[in-house]
Amino acid sequence: MTKNTKVNAAILIIGNEILSGRTQDTNTSTIALWLNSIGVKVNEVRVIADIEHTIIETIGHLRKKNNYVFTTGGIGPTHDDITAQSISKAFNLDYEIHKEAFKILEAYYKPGEFNEGRQKMVWMPKNAKLILNPTSGAPGFSIDNVFCLPGVPSILKSMLGGLNNEIVGGEPILSHTISLRTVESEIAKSLSKVQDNNNDVEIGSYPFFQAGKLGVSIVIRSEDQSKIDECSLQVLDFVNKKKIEIVHR
Amino acid sequence: MTKNTKVNAAILIIGNEILSGRTQDTNTSTIALWLNSIGVKVNEVRVIADIEHTIIETIGHLRKKNNYVFTTGGIGPTHDDITAQSISKAFNLDYEIHKEAFKILEAYYKPGEFNEGRQKMVWMPKNAKLILNPTSGAPGFSIDNVFCLPGVPSILKSMLGGLNNEIVGGEPILSHTISLRTVESEIAKSLSKVQDNNNDVEIGSYPFFQAGKLGVSIVIRSEDQSKIDECSLQVLDFVNKKKIEIVHR
Repeated sequence: MTKNTKVNAAILIIGNEILSGRTQDTNTSTIALWLNSIGVKVNEVRVIADIEHTIIETIGHLRKKNNYVFTTGGIGPTHDDITAQSISKAFNLDYEIHKEAFKILEAYYKPGEFNEGRQKMVWMPKNAKLILNPTSGAPGFSIDNVFCLPGVPSILKSMLGGLNNEIVGGEPILSHTISLRTVESEIAKSLSKVQDNNNDVEIGSYPFFQAGKLGVSIVIRSEDQSKIDECSLQVLDFVNKKKIEIVHR
Repeated sequence: MTKNTKVNAAILIIGNEILSGRTQDTNTSTIALWLNSIGVKVNEVRVIADIEHTIIETIGHLRKKNNYVFTTGGIGPTHDDITAQSISKAFNLDYEIHKEAFKILEAYYKPGEFNEGRQKMVWMPKNAKLILNPTSGAPGFSIDNVFCLPGVPSILKSMLGGLNNEIVGGEPILSHTISLRTVESEIAKSLSKVQDNNNDVEIGSYPFFQAGKLGVSIVIRSEDQSKIDECSLQVLDFVNKKKIEIVHR
């Protein structure tokens, strides 16, 4: 496949524990940072409950709207892990034992330890492609453009590297951050003008509070470094004219 | 309004910085924990970009499907803060200066400091109801069942208390956690039976790794404490039979 400059993805976090607030999701930023580095832009993130019809409907929608969909959660051994069976239904595929995954886990566990609970983790949509798990054995899987990963952050993190060759990204999305000792309202008008002059660059403004002092980070994002550089110069121009202290650039 | 036992909400996080992975969202768990405490269940969370038509479409969808919608982000003074104008369009309302908000900010800032950038923060949908901001002055607002809050976590947190009388929740959602020194696969079958016997209780199973040891937390959730108690007894029954160590109950 040739490199396309616009490749996008959705992230689907599956799990009641995120919706209840009990667990703080960190997988979104992990996946998003990795996707950015390989030139895939995250269009949207959804968090949904462990409910079969909700998973089926959401997958059906997201996989048509995005080049890739990454799910996290619901592929473990317990009753509330229903991602694999729901994805099977979403694709109208049989939900069955994946022979290669079975062999991997049979070899991973000591004799006698590959019990019924663990065997549930080798049930997948027919012809799923495995995503290897260097941390805890049990693989994730992909079907078409949907990639199903576990919810445990450390395990998920260890599996992303193995996907680098599976995902065809566009140009990496580059960014440059200029941090200023100011407040947003002081620079709003000037920054808005820079954005108007640079329509194909994404400029974000984010207040921060660090070491007892207020500041604003201006983040300039584009696939084109020269556009970022040009935009940075325009920002630094008004910053200097306003005699604003630069904390970091 | 009489208390309804099922009241639900969606959370809509608006901001490119979350989608790029640059910023770790924490507002979801803050809002979700608060909503749970007042009897509102979060059905879904979405994270979307600072794009007007995306905001309009998503709001239009979520506010019909949920009793309440809470948005975060995009109500500051800079060009990328487009939540208020997008919400105005979503409701077909004029986007105009909110007189009360203007008075609040005029009094909040020192003379001469209520500049053009800051004045942008008093533009809201016509007849918006203000959500007071004890931290930094600039209010959020609500229109119908949509509540718009800022993205900065500490400011958002300080504003939720003021909404307690605005939101009519159902019965608070109670939960009980039993933490065990085991792995999920050991208890998967027994836990599944308990779930089958207690269909109106939500049982979640979450592996953890703490102080160098693996464990599993079983979280039992319901509006009815007696159902949680009954379910806990059934869990403890199989835990004792299997001689699994209880870390916390």
